Amino acid sequence: MLYSNSLSKLIDMFKKMPGIGHKSAIRLAFNIISMSNEEVNEVLDTIKNAKEKISYCSICQNLTENDPCDICANEKRDQSTICVMESPKDVIALEKTREYFGLYHVLHGSISPMDDVTPDMLKIKELILRLKDDKIKEVILATNPSIEGEATAMYLARLIKPMGIKVSRIALGIPVGGDLEYADDVTITKAMELRHEL
Amino acid sequence: MLYSNSLSKLIDMFKKMPGIGHKSAIRLAFNIISMSNEEVNEVLDTIKNAKEKISYCSICQNLTENDPCDICANEKRDQSTICVMESPKDVIALEKTREYFGLYHVLHGSISPMDDVTPDMLKIKELILRLKDDKIKEVILATNPSIEGEATAMYLARLIKPMGIKVSRIALGIPVGGDLEYADDVTITKAMELRHEL
Repeated sequence: MLYSNSLSKLIDMFKKMPGIGHKSAIRLAFNIISMSNEEVNEVLDTIKNAKEKISYCSICQNLTENDPCDICANEKRDQSTICVMESPKDVIALEKTREYFGLYHVLHGSISPMDDVTPDMLKIKELILRLKDDKIKEVILATNPSIEGEATAMYLARLIKPMGIKVSRIALGIPVGGDLEYADDVTITKAMELRHEL
Repeated sequence: MLYSNSLSKLIDMFKKMPGIGHKSAIRLAFNIISMSNEEVNEVLDTIKNAKEKISYCSICQNLTENDPCDICANEKRDQSTICVMESPKDVIALEKTREYFGLYHVLHGSISPMDDVTPDMLKIKELILRLKDDKIKEVILATNPSIEGEATAMYLARLIKPMGIKVSRIALGIPVGGDLEYADDVTITKAMELRHEL
């Protein structure tokens, strides 16, 4: 009874968002209440607008305002390579490096029996459909080095290799600037396994 | 150009909220995009609803859905005492103790020349108007023990005392469970000044 009905609903809504705890939710809710009507309308419009305009690219499944997305529509990019990633945030991380010029495919998740995520819930069908095109020469599996990401990469490798397309996996190892002393056992083992002659 | 136009607008909107940094803003924006249309509509309705329904109590200026608010309308509460606080959050903190049964008055800020907050921007006129009523016997100044809070308390005390009403200030001292060793000099000095005979 400390908070009125619509205020506690607002607090609960913020609490459901990722990384927002009880105290932050209260702070955000009071912030909304203290805004002018114009400011609140701007918040509402920004959310509505983003949700309406942003959808999935029909080719790579990444978030986009145009279909196909700017990357898929860019003829200067290497049309023979597809980098498979778990989320749009991963695409942004790789794009920031300005070192990759191929195409992408976003799965929107990873296979996870624990969370009831099965392969058919990911954008795998769409990927296989793209691979039927002769242009694709290599698929780079860049899912996360987690149990789920690894499982997804293994699953995709088994599916794609028989199609005669080169399948590669990003290297796991000691991060640049990292310290062997603080790296975990599994990472060190991976780095040793994947060592290469100089 | 990493984020599309409406996505970066959404990220910027979240960044303006209190306690939300760049990474959290991105996370929240992607969370909105990944929601179903129904979920986004629920978010929009919750914000709109809270903003529409919640307004200031015409008596104590606290946030409320009914006017006058539940506390002002509660005849069982001590009608002769008003506790003056800076924000609605402070009222909730005091209500949680279940030890105060008087009325409140929320100033919505504190006098702060640094931030260009002058007395006329606070709900001080409304407080003085309430004090014209003979019922009020005591005003407890419970603004924060900050420079601004202290200045506001001093300002109000000078304004209210000549009206023949008892004015008191909450005690500043060592917090319960606190440690003298770690308390700052000003707090220890205050605690010594405000010592009382046992």
